[in-house]
Amino acid sequence: MTRVSEFLLHRRVQFYEVDSAGIVHFSWFFRYMEEAEHAMWREAGLSIHAVNDDIGWPRVATAFEFYRPLRFEDEFDVHLRVAQMTAKTIRYECVLTKNGEKIANGSMTIACVQKKPTMKAIAIPAEIASRLAPDRGAA
Amino acid sequence: MTRVSEFLLHRRVQFYEVDSAGIVHFSWFFRYMEEAEHAMWREAGLSIHAVNDDIGWPRVATAFEFYRPLRFEDEFDVHLRVAQMTAKTIRYECVLTKNGEKIANGSMTIACVQKKPTMKAIAIPAEIASRLAPDRGAA
Amino acid sequence: MTRVSEFLLHRRVQFYEVDSAGIVHFSWFFRYMEEAEHAMWREAGLSIHAVNDDIGWPRVATAFEFYRPLRFEDEFDVHLRVAQMTAKTIRYECVLTKNGEKIANGSMTIACVQKKPTMKAIAIPAEIASRLAPDRGAA
Amino acid sequence: MTRVSEFLLHRRVQFYEVDSAGIVHFSWFFRYMEEAEHAMWREAGLSIHAVNDDIGWPRVATAFEFYRPLRFEDEFDVHLRVAQMTAKTIRYECVLTKNGEKIANGSMTIACVQKKPTMKAIAIPAEIASRLAPDRGAA
Repeated sequence: MTRVSEFLLHRRVQFYEVDSAGIVHFSWFFRYMEEAEHAMWREAGLSIHAVNDDIGWPRVATAFEFYRPLRFEDEFDVHLRVAQMTAKTIRYECVLTKNGEKIANGSMTIACVQKKPTMKAIAIPAEIASRLAPDRGAA
Repeated sequence: MTRVSEFLLHRRVQFYEVDSAGIVHFSWFFRYMEEAEHAMWREAGLSIHAVNDDIGWPRVATAFEFYRPLRFEDEFDVHLRVAQMTAKTIRYECVLTKNGEKIANGSMTIACVQKKPTMKAIAIPAEIASRLAPDRGAA
Repeated sequence: MTRVSEFLLHRRVQFYEVDSAGIVHFSWFFRYMEEAEHAMWREAGLSIHAVNDDIGWPRVATAFEFYRPLRFEDEFDVHLRVAQMTAKTIRYECVLTKNGEKIANGSMTIACVQKKPTMKAIAIPAEIASRLAPDRGAA
Repeated sequence: MTRVSEFLLHRRVQFYEVDSAGIVHFSWFFRYMEEAEHAMWREAGLSIHAVNDDIGWPRVATAFEFYRPLRFEDEFDVHLRVAQMTAKTIRYECVLTKNGEKIANGSMTIACVQKKPTMKAIAIPAEIASRLAPDRGAA
């Protein structure tokens, strides 16, 4: 089985994502990054939130730098890469582009946790770890 | 114990609720109505979504008519009333106003359901039904 | 030129659309309906929110009835139809289905307005009215 | 006139902010930080988005580190501080706490831009710069 290391999500800006300055509200970039993450997991044959799942994937840290705005009906790409995997965490990096022009850079670190009895970091199950791998081209 | 029949929520428009036309996006009015509902339940000593709760309250139907727009930083009121209660459902009506001027009218019907094994309508528990009551002034 | 009367939007539920009851939050159905509307306008060669546009399309009334829940990663369809057009308004109706099973029914009436000096209903410009038409099968 | 350097926002978690893992979706923390920013500007006698304003305040960079989850109906505080001001930018830092326990740390840098003819960074107007000041206690 080939491990998945990156994903390219093509997306159009929706009206409800645009604020009164006429540009996509910055909070949406984090949702775009997460959409690409979940699509990458599906590509790997996984679901990040299976019903009745005993484990979860809370976000530990995330950041974005914004270079150019996105506007209503713009089409853009989210290029997500697995930048690093540790026993209990995964770090992603992503670049948003529109027609090849850089829009924004993002990153996100998630941790594998057991949900009960209390939320606590645990080792990523082998079944999941075996399907994802850091992108060799990652910094 | 006094039954709760209505609630007045005072609220300010947040930036992320305003769309590129400079007015609150219509999807937010449903969230405003729901905020008032949950505040009314708290007033009645209840939480509509207790952790590990076996019952839930999905929305069955909802509607809004919009008369005037709300804009960034506007302060407004959501006046929510219990319009009707049946064995398994509650119907709310609400009026949004700004400085006494009518902004919008909304309604929402929710049903009490058991979550497992399958989502199914059940009678509203007496503990909850005893704390809410239709507003006598309701149409 | 063929007038556009309906549009079928295929969509997947995103994680941030699902609430703590594990089902799509009801406010999202209005956004799904609007996504289908805007895609229909693009199909008709139009944009509902052109930059520097002097007219706008506020929502006048909208409603939904919910039959079955949608869950994370569900794929579904939004079938939107132009139900009625008057000189100044357009009324849409939509049906959401998942694998042919009815999920919800919605409707939405929008009005054409001039934005300045004050928001006021005006006749729909011929250029727009000529590209949309009520669906003959509409009730 | 006293310059404003910090702001404490008290807030309750709303239902639509909570995801299917039962915790506030991480994208909301950026909105909480922005709510505190706009409330701080109001405290300073300013509005960050005045109608017909020729300038805007796009976000240049933002980040959050998450330590503990927030759940439905939790009450929490957003303590926002002006960490740095340059000729054209403002950098904020914030700490979210619940009952004194640290929930998350965030930061956000915004730039002052002219909107037309093209979005371009400009010096912060004196009227605004004179009402805000870096918090002396900031790192």
